[in-house]
Amino acid sequence: MYGFWASSCTWRVRAALHFKGIAFEEKSVDIVKEQKQLTDEYRSINPSQKVPALVMNGETIVESMAIIQYLEEMRPEVSLVPKSPILRARMREICETIVSGIQPLQNIGLKRHFDSENKFKEFAEYFTTRGLESVEEQLKKTAGRFCIGDQITVADLCLVPQVYNGIVRHKINMEKFPIVSNVYEHLLKEKTFIETHPKNIK
Amino acid sequence: MYGFWASSCTWRVRAALHFKGIAFEEKSVDIVKEQKQLTDEYRSINPSQKVPALVMNGETIVESMAIIQYLEEMRPEVSLVPKSPILRARMREICETIVSGIQPLQNIGLKRHFDSENKFKEFAEYFTTRGLESVEEQLKKTAGRFCIGDQITVADLCLVPQVYNGIVRHKINMEKFPIVSNVYEHLLKEKTFIETHPKNIK
Repeated sequence: MYGFWASSCTWRVRAALHFKGIAFEEKSVDIVKEQKQLTDEYRSINPSQKVPALVMNGETIVESMAIIQYLEEMRPEVSLVPKSPILRARMREICETIVSGIQPLQNIGLKRHFDSENKFKEFAEYFTTRGLESVEEQLKKTAGRFCIGDQITVADLCLVPQVYNGIVRHKINMEKFPIVSNVYEHLLKEKTFIETHPKNIK
Repeated sequence: MYGFWASSCTWRVRAALHFKGIAFEEKSVDIVKEQKQLTDEYRSINPSQKVPALVMNGETIVESMAIIQYLEEMRPEVSLVPKSPILRARMREICETIVSGIQPLQNIGLKRHFDSENKFKEFAEYFTTRGLESVEEQLKKTAGRFCIGDQITVADLCLVPQVYNGIVRHKINMEKFPIVSNVYEHLLKEKTFIETHPKNIK
């Protein structure tokens, strides 16, 4: 896997690989200081010049959720997906709220499009908060210890890196999101998230 | 289905329902002038205050891609997904590039977060162009008449509304994207996209 320790999309895939017990090597592509994603070398791996990218069975797959679904289809034994169709739909609602509704609107690549650091901060904070409000509502229907009952699913792989970003980068006040916070705290105690945590990868 | 004629995410779901031959009624929620998504009435349908939302089998499903996957699982006979796992992954790469990489960064809900109409236009145009560059590369691997060979898939449901927005709203010069343009032109001639086209819904 090509990834970066601080990338939330990389963390999703890193956690999926770990959870499924698939041995992998992580090659660091520094997307911040060194801007390695822009090199010709990396462009030949992922023309979109983003992390993560996974090389598996001779194929390179990009885009974190596409990678995770591919892993789920290739290695379904340790599943990250609920058994019932309606719970799968609930899981995907949470995933999409984070993956399309929060992550793209707070990532640091946007910063240079704003007149000031402060303008970017406001923007990132607004959309993180708005997205977490939706997730909080969604979790009222489904949460147990984790997003969907007591099974770790793809929704948890999306939630943990996003809440971590929210707290660490955007200083979001999580008191407004008690269910999200509770699920997040439970997940942080799970081996999957301890061993794939950016602090332990850096 | 609760949706809005001009919403690209609504068009994705409208096209999925049409393609699968599922009879449905579209209830208009004007998200632009009347801001009906913010009413208490609509909040009780989708607390995220977004369209589309689908009521089916007594359940309300939100988030367009979650809805489409639910439809695929409930009505797999007329499939929107390729048979091989690697082509499914290729399809999802295209979907995610559009759904997370373009749509959230060009939608008109962002406008009020920018100092001027022009600033928003630049931003929307930049991310639409960048995303279409990725899709153009991705289509080199898979395109036939449509995104994945000659089968209409979920990738096409994402592509058509996004390119339409790109051309009509953001005045993107499509000459730089010959494969995307070619696939788009083919798709516009398909009954699914003719009958679900915003011009024919308005």
